[in-house]
Amino acid sequence: MRDLVAVDLAKCYRLLNHGPTVLVSSAHAGQQNVMAAAWAMPLDFDPPKVLVVIDKATHTRQLMEASGEFVLNLPCQAQAAQVLQAGSCSGKEVDKFQASGLQALPGDKVAAPHVAGCIAYLECRIISEPHNQQQYDLFIGQVVAARADPDVWHDGHWQFEGHDEKRSLHYIAGGNFFSIGQQFSVAPYSAS
Amino acid sequence: MRDLVAVDLAKCYRLLNHGPTVLVSSAHAGQQNVMAAAWAMPLDFDPPKVLVVIDKATHTRQLMEASGEFVLNLPCQAQAAQVLQAGSCSGKEVDKFQASGLQALPGDKVAAPHVAGCIAYLECRIISEPHNQQQYDLFIGQVVAARADPDVWHDGHWQFEGHDEKRSLHYIAGGNFFSIGQQFSVAPYSAS
Repeated sequence: MRDLVAVDLAKCYRLLNHGPTVLVSSAHAGQQNVMAAAWAMPLDFDPPKVLVVIDKATHTRQLMEASGEFVLNLPCQAQAAQVLQAGSCSGKEVDKFQASGLQALPGDKVAAPHVAGCIAYLECRIISEPHNQQQYDLFIGQVVAARADPDVWHDGHWQFEGHDEKRSLHYIAGGNFFSIGQQFSVAPYSAS
Repeated sequence: MRDLVAVDLAKCYRLLNHGPTVLVSSAHAGQQNVMAAAWAMPLDFDPPKVLVVIDKATHTRQLMEASGEFVLNLPCQAQAAQVLQAGSCSGKEVDKFQASGLQALPGDKVAAPHVAGCIAYLECRIISEPHNQQQYDLFIGQVVAARADPDVWHDGHWQFEGHDEKRSLHYIAGGNFFSIGQQFSVAPYSAS
């Protein structure tokens, strides 16, 4: 899985544009953690920025605030049970990687790890916004590196045909997910 | 389409949790507008809040800032051409409802209209955060009313089986969309 290809930062918003659930990974002072988050999305194109909501009670948040970094990992259909487990226990109590069966790999430009088997990574440095962080649990990250799996990312777009096990996950609730569905094209509506 | 059912506000985050593309509608002083936005998501459960990114150049933004309100409408697969058109022209130049073939219906608690044929509505009042709005084009809305189409919303969850034309849209780029795919359930990963 280390052969993921670099994604042009000007296009990296497209990794998140369709609304997938993510795994947020973080590290500081020899500790690392991973958690599931459905509330993440792009914020800007250039320089690319993302938003993610991270509860104050989480171990991930402690590591994010201490390090100023995080990675948004895009898990796929084959990893749904691991994602659910990573969203169901706390890194304050257990080793989340061990508990969820997920494997940490080194990041490119940040200390926060990548999660093996994911279909994309967005490495982020936090843009400090204390009011948003305190009032809304809302973090803004500037994307400093991005990679995607060439099996399903071609020519700057997701293309999942023939790779159902690598389709992105979209969390519902209670252990239920959607996988992303069919791609289709339309021409703009014309009244004429 | 006026028979959409009220959604419990404590559960309304689930309308957006899986990452659909939305139509943002707004109105002020006799003007109304609609635009497409891929960058919208939940921010909090109770009271329910949402985030949406709205560029300064848009007519929608002018109406939002003047009225303090907006509606996030969830369009469906059958409306893809209209959504693309609503994302491809400016309400400063044309009547976007007319240009996109979309129909405006009255809101419940806000002056901003609902878009006919959508599968859900979240009516929002803006929580004023001038720094976020100016610096990041980022708006926070408190959800004050929500409705969903009972054909595809049951028991507090999306259930699209048998209604492919009403599946949610997830925008890619260049007139390409994903529709949301299959639902599946997993048990949390266990190492034992």
